[in-house]
Amino acid sequence: AFSQGLSVPNRARPRRSVVVRAEAAGTINTAIRKEEDKVVDSVVVTELSKPLTAYCRCWRSGTFPLCDGGHVKHNKATGDNVGPLLLKKQ
Amino acid sequence: AFSQGLSVPNRARPRRSVVVRAEAAGTINTAIRKEEDKVVDSVVVTELSKPLTAYCRCWRSGTFPLCDGGHVKHNKATGDNVGPLLLKKQ
Ligand code: FES
Ligand code: FES
Repeated sequence: AFSQGLSVPNRARPRRSVVVRAEAAGTINTAIRKEEDKVVDSVVVTELSKPLTAYCRCWRSGTFPLCDGGHVKHNKATGDNVGPLLLKKQ
Repeated sequence: AFSQGLSVPNRARPRRSVVVRAEAAGTINTAIRKEEDKVVDSVVVTELSKPLTAYCRCWRSGTFPLCDGGHVKHNKATGDNVGPLLLKKQ
């Protein structure tokens, strides 16, 4: 009876599990141009058409690399404080 | 005996707990100017001194808002693919 007790496999016990999305562990960009090894964008500043242009640094913009204000929703949802880079012609 | 059994408090049972850093849940910026509600930077493009200047979008740079190459370590550690915004004078 003693050795029978020891032979009860671990998996016979009920287990609790926690599912963690591996992708999300420290990843900043979850969706934009994931097929690229590194997402780099260039701006020729002499070609800027407007006095002020906002560029995204939160990786949540629907118009990336431009900022579309999506950082507001991200900051509210996570308690973060990220915002865009503003390019000014004057 | 029946009602005595029901009165055993939940906290008498051994509990397993998972500690999650609330800050890290979806947060992009973990360290830079966290005292600010929203980190926004401005560049007057006519004042750029070099032909090419890289601005950080990974929030891991030691010279933020400039890129110091810290995105390389972040991408390697997490499998991410973020990179800077390059401002070019020509
Ligand atoms: S939408 Fe990303 S910084 Fe504004
Ligand atoms: S160090 Fe952040 S993009 Fe290069």
